[in-house]
Amino acid sequence: MTETFHVVPTAAHEALVSAAYQKRGFTVDEAAQAARLATAATRHGIRTHNAIKALHLDEQFGSKAGGCTPAAEILRLPNRFDACEIWDAQGKLGQAVAWEAIETCIRLADKHGTGTVSVDNAFHYLWGGGYVMEAARRGYIAYTNCTASLAEVVPFKGAFPTLGTNPHSWGFPTTEAVGYPVVIDWATSVIAMGRVQQLAREGKRLPPDAAVDKNGRSTTDPAQATSLVPFGAHKGYGLALVNEIVAALIGGSLPTIRSRHTGGPGEKHGCAFFFQVIHPEAVSGGAFACGRSQAENVKAVLADIRGHGNESCVLPGQIEAESARRCEQVGGLLFSTAEIEALNEIAAEAGLAPFDIPTLPTV
Amino acid sequence: MTETFHVVPTAAHEALVSAAYQKRGFTVDEAAQAARLATAATRHGIRTHNAIKALHLDEQFGSKAGGCTPAAEILRLPNRFDACEIWDAQGKLGQAVAWEAIETCIRLADKHGTGTVSVDNAFHYLWGGGYVMEAARRGYIAYTNCTASLAEVVPFKGAFPTLGTNPHSWGFPTTEAVGYPVVIDWATSVIAMGRVQQLAREGKRLPPDAAVDKNGRSTTDPAQATSLVPFGAHKGYGLALVNEIVAALIGGSLPTIRSRHTGGPGEKHGCAFFFQVIHPEAVSGGAFACGRSQAENVKAVLADIRGHGNESCVLPGQIEAESARRCEQVGGLLFSTAEIEALNEIAAEAGLAPFDIPTLPTV
Repeated sequence: MTETFHVVPTAAHEALVSAAYQKRGFTVDEAAQAARLATAATRHGIRTHNAIKALHLDEQFGSKAGGCTPAAEILRLPNRFDACEIWDAQGKLGQAVAWEAIETCIRLADKHGTGTVSVDNAFHYLWGGGYVMEAARRGYIAYTNCTASLAEVVPFKGAFPTLGTNPHSWGFPTTEAVGYPVVIDWATSVIAMGRVQQLAREGKRLPPDAAVDKNGRSTTDPAQATSLVPFGAHKGYGLALVNEIVAALIGGSLPTIRSRHTGGPGEKHGCAFFFQVIHPEAVSGGAFACGRSQAENVKAVLADIRGHGNESCVLPGQIEAESARRCEQVGGLLFSTAEIEALNEIAAEAGLAPFDIPTLPTV
Repeated sequence: MTETFHVVPTAAHEALVSAAYQKRGFTVDEAAQAARLATAATRHGIRTHNAIKALHLDEQFGSKAGGCTPAAEILRLPNRFDACEIWDAQGKLGQAVAWEAIETCIRLADKHGTGTVSVDNAFHYLWGGGYVMEAARRGYIAYTNCTASLAEVVPFKGAFPTLGTNPHSWGFPTTEAVGYPVVIDWATSVIAMGRVQQLAREGKRLPPDAAVDKNGRSTTDPAQATSLVPFGAHKGYGLALVNEIVAALIGGSLPTIRSRHTGGPGEKHGCAFFFQVIHPEAVSGGAFACGRSQAENVKAVLADIRGHGNESCVLPGQIEAESARRCEQVGGLLFSTAEIEALNEIAAEAGLAPFDIPTLPTV
């Protein structure tokens, strides 16, 4: 059985998301940046990081909880290095900070080959893949990591959750080679806590080695699962540590008090972001085999990887690109009925008319 | 039963490795750089990337096979970006290129905040962790990746090996915080092909989801295993792709012909290296909780991660640091009897006297 999706015009979606953010006190520009990311996530099929999730997070940890400050200004901190900027986001909306960080990284990379922006006192930017995809779409290599709001993941062989789900996102300028940017984007836990809760509701088991009980013992029973496990044993653990150490170097504090009202006076509760963009000419040796251009060389390498019987293997970013193409074909964004109902609650909060579900085209 | 190790003075080890490389035509300086990396690997317990492996690789793919050119000069290619250098290594010894790349990255990072060196026409640098550890020991954040010599790994859900074991290495300046640099360093396959062969010899099974047979079916029988599998399903696959795409942007060619005498005229067979160093002040917001310094903040974050019942969790780099401490205590490098015998074969090739095994101190 295929799920039914309703087609919502992009402009209507952006108007709704913008209104909801403005209603919560965010500026017109902040609201537009939040809407832009929500549209990008939905367009690319990233249903876990759509507007519904974004506004829910804002409610749980953000403007309604003191973790995010509407209309905050980014403070650009003095630093003596010309290829790097360091920002104090002062709790400004994560999506607005992240879009601006990517633009700044691109500007620095155009000049120095690489551009780096580190952000202290940040608030959740939702979907890291969206920012690196934008840079990759424009021809750059891009990377971001951030610390997740809550410590839900145990260290390798540990029992108590002291790490965030700490995602990494890489974007590569492969549009000329394969038609879309390769975007590698995932959390460092095997699954998300939301998935544990979903499987609990559905009475299903967890995949093996994805969660532990309160004593740190591996469990596939969602009712017993108290914490998540890094993917790939010590390797995913190492990747989760990267975000924590980078955040600690930037200015983030203890992971177990992040986004929580605990810890003593003088403590900090914000996330940290790290962004980097590299100009493709700043890594190019210019001597590609058989007279190929750089883009042709990338195409040949990716074709080799997916040749020899591997033709059905997908590239990271491919499913997202197919989702975006489908949205273009149907002329709007796709939402399930449950999602439209959630959007209608958001519309009610923002004082807007709800979507009239029976009148929306379906696919 | 604990294995017996023989203590070899570091100077004797370096003299042997240097002589062996010089005997094969490498310059005094190249040989010294190879010896330096071999010592670092052995000191830190990285027995898979010691001098024996290095010289074996040189025999299989390097100076004896045309993949590495003794006394080659690094060509620094013109590029308009001041924070990045692009090198054509012209097949120069990987260890010599890598040590120099790290120094160059540090120099660039001191000026621009980040320093990046991309290397085309490279030859295997052995142990990426060693180079980033050196930068981290000196207070910098460092990263390197490279493409592995052979395509031994299948893409996620693939059947034919078209990816290298493509390692990633990160080093962090955590010596003040925990006594040693955190170094995260591993291949993107679950296990190495050498491990498959070892388990085959010992009549043991492979771990699950580590290898596939010639039809791409998962197998735990080392005799049936023809290819390796990326760790963490699509996530490790994505990480392996990062190296291939970066290499393709630099100038590397098809992974399936790398280090192999196949492919048409105009083809390239070398690896590519990517290095980056970041100055810790170039990411620091300077506002650490409770008046902590940057190093104290990193210490507090790592203590939080390994607190709350996680005290027995190790940090990446910790086992390596303990190995180095042990070498310091015993006043030399530790080798098994089989390793000393292999070193003695190398000594014979280099025209040096063998180690007299009964006279070496043991631990």
